[in-house]
Amino acid sequence: MKLRAFHKLSYGLYLIASEHEGKKAGYIANTVFQVTSKPPLIAISCHKDNMSTAVIRNSGKFSVSVLKKELDVKLIGDFGFMSGDEIDKFNQREIITAATGAPVVLDEAVAWFDCKVQQEIDLGSHWLVIGEVQDSDLLSDDDPLTYAWYREKYKMFSPKNSPTYLEKDKLDEEQKEDEANAPQEEPKPEGAEPHVCLICGFVYDPEKGDPTMGIPPGTAFEDLPDDYKCPICNAGKDYFRKL
Amino acid sequence: MKLRAFHKLSYGLYLIASEHEGKKAGYIANTVFQVTSKPPLIAISCHKDNMSTAVIRNSGKFSVSVLKKELDVKLIGDFGFMSGDEIDKFNQREIITAATGAPVVLDEAVAWFDCKVQQEIDLGSHWLVIGEVQDSDLLSDDDPLTYAWYREKYKMFSPKNSPTYLEKDKLDEEQKEDEANAPQEEPKPEGAEPHVCLICGFVYDPEKGDPTMGIPPGTAFEDLPDDYKCPICNAGKDYFRKL
Repeated sequence: MKLRAFHKLSYGLYLIASEHEGKKAGYIANTVFQVTSKPPLIAISCHKDNMSTAVIRNSGKFSVSVLKKELDVKLIGDFGFMSGDEIDKFNQREIITAATGAPVVLDEAVAWFDCKVQQEIDLGSHWLVIGEVQDSDLLSDDDPLTYAWYREKYKMFSPKNSPTYLEKDKLDEEQKEDEANAPQEEPKPEGAEPHVCLICGFVYDPEKGDPTMGIPPGTAFEDLPDDYKCPICNAGKDYFRKL
Repeated sequence: MKLRAFHKLSYGLYLIASEHEGKKAGYIANTVFQVTSKPPLIAISCHKDNMSTAVIRNSGKFSVSVLKKELDVKLIGDFGFMSGDEIDKFNQREIITAATGAPVVLDEAVAWFDCKVQQEIDLGSHWLVIGEVQDSDLLSDDDPLTYAWYREKYKMFSPKNSPTYLEKDKLDEEQKEDEANAPQEEPKPEGAEPHVCLICGFVYDPEKGDPTMGIPPGTAFEDLPDDYKCPICNAGKDYFRKL
């Protein structure tokens, strides 16, 4: 079994939102698929431990916002890596209420769907929730964000509760075995080591810097300003460790 | 409801194959997604009318080959638009038998998965089949083919039995309404009309020609050689009609 084969499956990136008894919940997902066309049914895979999953199942409705390729990644930090207990994810966002009553986040979106839950399938760790599309809109002709591009640009792994989570240790081991007979790379000089954000998994690579935060290529992690924050989840420098 | 919103959902393109009692079946799909990671489960949506669906359900196994971005489109013509009754899709293909006994087509693939059917969910027109991955391999680091790129390059619509099929008439109507107030385009001069292949939906556009078949841009459909064949499904000129 090659774990890296799973990286060849293609996904988009979406913001899924719902609301039950006045409580809004939302998260970032890659598993959103149309599964039939008549009626138009969309399937999403939701981890049983996530608060949003309970809100979707209790309310029987959810919206899917299709994110655009060039977006403000803070949206992904807020909805993908923070809990609704820590921050109000919906504060200062542009939101409409769709026909089902589900909130739809319009920020950074190219299209959206409003869905009524039709059935739920028990998959062990996740519920596969099937929703019938009640309404949809196209907001712009911009390209949608794909998971491949996001992973390439931000060097991200899936969070632990994602259906596509792969254990980093096992991936590393697999890569190591494959490279056992390949010529060894020179060890990196002091200051050139990448650092990983312990909160969200973002990797700061000194060779590339962090253009989104105005950090030029060639800046060692130690030379980052003290108030440097993870571009994904806003964690401070203390939350990074050497890879 | 905006139908074009559905075009913003992201998919890859895959060849799904199975075998039951010596009879192989295979087709091209875009709805392949990982739905849990422990155990690794993959879901596919299969139309009830397709022969492959019966073979998958009867045998309890299927393989998924992830197609590469730059591929010989004849593979898609054969597996996506032809019936197993008309041609032997597996003839002259490079095939291995995976652990479950499912055939795996290696041609034009970057990775593959071998799956044992775990459950089947009735979605009306389709079965959603959930398979547990028994084995997988990575064949190359090439980019996988995405449905967006395929649609862009070949101007293709989904076949009628695809979960993502949208009715062309309704799409056209929607586009027309949106463009009602936009300035009118000049009617195209004689010989510049695009022609659609009635078998598979491929559109021949004289402005672009068909570089894959050595036809230069600016070649009217009428000026194509008599033995011109659809680059996707090999249908002859008689199968094309003016759009």
